[in-house]
Amino acid sequence: METIKVIIAGPRGRMGKEAVQLIAGQEHMELVAVLDHRYDGKLLSEVVEFSNAEVQIYTNIEECLQNTKADVLVDLTTPEFGYIHTKTALEYGVRPVVGTTGFTKEQLEELTQLAERKGIGCIIAPNFAIGAVLMMKFSQMAAKYFKDIEIIEMHHDQKLDAPSGTAVKTAEMISQAREEKIQGHPEEKETIDGARGANFEGMRIHSVRLPGLIAHQEVLLGADGQTLTIRHDSYNRASFMSGVKVSIETVLNLETLVYGLENILD
Amino acid sequence: METIKVIIAGPRGRMGKEAVQLIAGQEHMELVAVLDHRYDGKLLSEVVEFSNAEVQIYTNIEECLQNTKADVLVDLTTPEFGYIHTKTALEYGVRPVVGTTGFTKEQLEELTQLAERKGIGCIIAPNFAIGAVLMMKFSQMAAKYFKDIEIIEMHHDQKLDAPSGTAVKTAEMISQAREEKIQGHPEEKETIDGARGANFEGMRIHSVRLPGLIAHQEVLLGADGQTLTIRHDSYNRASFMSGVKVSIETVLNLETLVYGLENILD
Amino acid sequence: METIKVIIAGPRGRMGKEAVQLIAGQEHMELVAVLDHRYDGKLLSEVVEFSNAEVQIYTNIEECLQNTKADVLVDLTTPEFGYIHTKTALEYGVRPVVGTTGFTKEQLEELTQLAERKGIGCIIAPNFAIGAVLMMKFSQMAAKYFKDIEIIEMHHDQKLDAPSGTAVKTAEMISQAREEKIQGHPEEKETIDGARGANFEGMRIHSVRLPGLIAHQEVLLGADGQTLTIRHDSYNRASFMSGVKVSIETVLNLETLVYGLENILD
Amino acid sequence: METIKVIIAGPRGRMGKEAVQLIAGQEHMELVAVLDHRYDGKLLSEVVEFSNAEVQIYTNIEECLQNTKADVLVDLTTPEFGYIHTKTALEYGVRPVVGTTGFTKEQLEELTQLAERKGIGCIIAPNFAIGAVLMMKFSQMAAKYFKDIEIIEMHHDQKLDAPSGTAVKTAEMISQAREEKIQGHPEEKETIDGARGANFEGMRIHSVRLPGLIAHQEVLLGADGQTLTIRHDSYNRASFMSGVKVSIETVLNLETLVYGLENILD
Repeated sequence: METIKVIIAGPRGRMGKEAVQLIAGQEHMELVAVLDHRYDGKLLSEVVEFSNAEVQIYTNIEECLQNTKADVLVDLTTPEFGYIHTKTALEYGVRPVVGTTGFTKEQLEELTQLAERKGIGCIIAPNFAIGAVLMMKFSQMAAKYFKDIEIIEMHHDQKLDAPSGTAVKTAEMISQAREEKIQGHPEEKETIDGARGANFEGMRIHSVRLPGLIAHQEVLLGADGQTLTIRHDSYNRASFMSGVKVSIETVLNLETLVYGLENILD
Repeated sequence: METIKVIIAGPRGRMGKEAVQLIAGQEHMELVAVLDHRYDGKLLSEVVEFSNAEVQIYTNIEECLQNTKADVLVDLTTPEFGYIHTKTALEYGVRPVVGTTGFTKEQLEELTQLAERKGIGCIIAPNFAIGAVLMMKFSQMAAKYFKDIEIIEMHHDQKLDAPSGTAVKTAEMISQAREEKIQGHPEEKETIDGARGANFEGMRIHSVRLPGLIAHQEVLLGADGQTLTIRHDSYNRASFMSGVKVSIETVLNLETLVYGLENILD
Repeated sequence: METIKVIIAGPRGRMGKEAVQLIAGQEHMELVAVLDHRYDGKLLSEVVEFSNAEVQIYTNIEECLQNTKADVLVDLTTPEFGYIHTKTALEYGVRPVVGTTGFTKEQLEELTQLAERKGIGCIIAPNFAIGAVLMMKFSQMAAKYFKDIEIIEMHHDQKLDAPSGTAVKTAEMISQAREEKIQGHPEEKETIDGARGANFEGMRIHSVRLPGLIAHQEVLLGADGQTLTIRHDSYNRASFMSGVKVSIETVLNLETLVYGLENILD
Repeated sequence: METIKVIIAGPRGRMGKEAVQLIAGQEHMELVAVLDHRYDGKLLSEVVEFSNAEVQIYTNIEECLQNTKADVLVDLTTPEFGYIHTKTALEYGVRPVVGTTGFTKEQLEELTQLAERKGIGCIIAPNFAIGAVLMMKFSQMAAKYFKDIEIIEMHHDQKLDAPSGTAVKTAEMISQAREEKIQGHPEEKETIDGARGANFEGMRIHSVRLPGLIAHQEVLLGADGQTLTIRHDSYNRASFMSGVKVSIETVLNLETLVYGLENILD
């Protein structure tokens, strides 16, 4: 396998730091530069504690793309910067791998057309945790045969919103595969409000919040005489890096923009 | 161990049939008679399909108690009959083991005094599933050290009420051991109503209903860096019989009325 | 949807009885006859307790196929009879759905060619529990991204063999998707023999046997910072019927023989 | 509640740092000094990064005990130092709370007598994770009613020994409560060696090792028609601190040495 030359945008953020480490640990990948809004011209090792990455920092993306002959740009910044980085990279023929949920429909449409015109791959992923994405994908597949589904998501008690974004995304993906169905006994009664959880097109979502917990989700699918359970436990941020790795490898073989990790996992 | 002589009231009901089988399988127990509101004088084997129990059926409890020198009366009938049976048995010096949730406070008080006066044991249990009772007891014990608790109960989708009686009983027992605490982040928000479940003095209860499921409950207790989970799965009615067996053995050594299996398990 | 006309072979067996019930409950399916080695000419309702199926019993398959214009023959007999039934049905243009693990490679080859020549579908399934089949299929798919996998299968303590057939089948399917990998620390030591379970090409299989349990399996897949768990719980024989139903519906649209439910689930 | 004055021995170790933080977060506790083999006379804040604990470091335990009127000495050093610290503290009338598995039987005997003579409490705990200790204790209690038990312990794949120390300790505690019993079918066969796990007096222990996992254990207890499962998940070192806190509070009310957290939790 030829070495894949990678640029990382946002190398000082929490995800960015993990990504720098990830590339360092891959024999067939090489970090050739990083993009940052500060520290132009310095080495990454000079500005990030514990880093020994002797790669140059650029603040100007065009200069960065011209000077390095990168294959892939991994963007872990904000939606605003990410959009500009993605567009510019595509124009320079460099394949973007972008972790964001923040692009508008119009931006996605524009980037899709640009990738198509250039004939090169681009991956935009709201969630890089392969395990979470597989959980959603498998739940959707199983929903064709198991019409009754409940989701239990469990997080630390500092989380503000319930249900979690992943739980809602899972329910949406399942909804595409099954007809709406009101679950439970038609005459069931809640003797304490909320016992049956959040109602999402008949599916029920339950949000557990406890100190100690990190980020966990269980999808339960029931049918006559059997249940199927698909569970994902995420213990730390390293769980996202396998998705970044697969995306870098896959984007080289794509000729269009793909949205969502689930569409490149087979 | 000397043989324990047992009378069963309600031998044709679902629980009663299991109890007849239970006694037949115990070397140190003997079924000496059954109480029924029909079939006086017949043999149980004559009126119950597949039964080979050659014991006499009585419709009159006093006659039954006089003719058999029973040690224990197991009552698996209704609250109405159960009350009369329990009272009469105590008066005859026969120890009652009764499965019911239906006695009034006054009836319990009266039976308690009667048992005390007679100086013999009596066990009244709303739930004979030892596993369920241990789950409740352990959850209560652990609540002293784990202040944050959520209950997930899971049943088949023909169940009408949510939360289940066992879940509410569990929450009540836990409440006795911990101060009321509002759980989750103080500013947490439900983006879909009910996501955070039923609120029982700050604890949360979640009711899952799916075809395939039978009767399951999980108590999750969280603290810094760890969670403790206590789960009971009940697959069929046989799960109640171990509680009946322990009760028959224990009631012989009691000199008062005990309410709730949790108070005889140590 | 047009009504699908179904013949069931083996209607008095445990699976056969469930299948008769299944068809009775489907609006778009009709039981037109049953095949049995006894009771020729009688009605099924005359020989099976509690059955109200007024369909004729045939002992001769050719006569049965000629007299009924069936679309599908569901065979739940033995490998010996099943083979003859499958072959004869195909020759008469009736699509077979067969639950068996017992066909030889030669028989499968012959039936495959016959189905192809006739241009009609045929489904042969060692396991009709859709949940179990999806668990295996999903584990195989996930193994591409999660190289470390352990299987825990849990059964009642009357089971003789360990690991279970399903666990071994799961491991085999996973093996097709991943390179052999020795798991655990290279220098790990068992201080009590067997602690690390059965070694299947580096994967570990653990067999739990307890009274109370029925049939359960959990596949755990681990990667940096995350685990994915896929679990199937089978509570009773009804769990097989959803697989029979899907097979009856699918076989009508096939033009070849398909072996294994996993190959018709998408 | 009066403020409890605490000395911590080993404040620069991983456990020690957590303990310093723990005391800082308790309204009714005050850190009055720390014991270290270095940095005599300095402040802890001067030698530990991120620490703002302005307490004095002592290298001499007698001087430390004399100058501070401490109630409790928490020792998180090595068995060698721990033994000396415990003995000296007892002689000075200061109650020790010690986390170690390394004391010899003779040392324990001697310290027990010393505590008795002084009439003050002393707690020595091999494991401070309350959840793990409760899991063991509950398993032991339940073993009286559930004779069939299997343990599944799950750890990251860098762990060297299998089964884990906690799993063996759990099995030992259960053994004290049940008669030895050979589990599974008398004629069960392993078609792949090790499938049934490690045999500990008839109980079976299964060790799962996967990247992503941290430290988890599940005790499964089975009986007719039901299973009871007790599970502990430990996510990080903070899980030990609740045990240290309870020990500090409890040791004040003891008049003897207690070995094992399970003996102070009720």
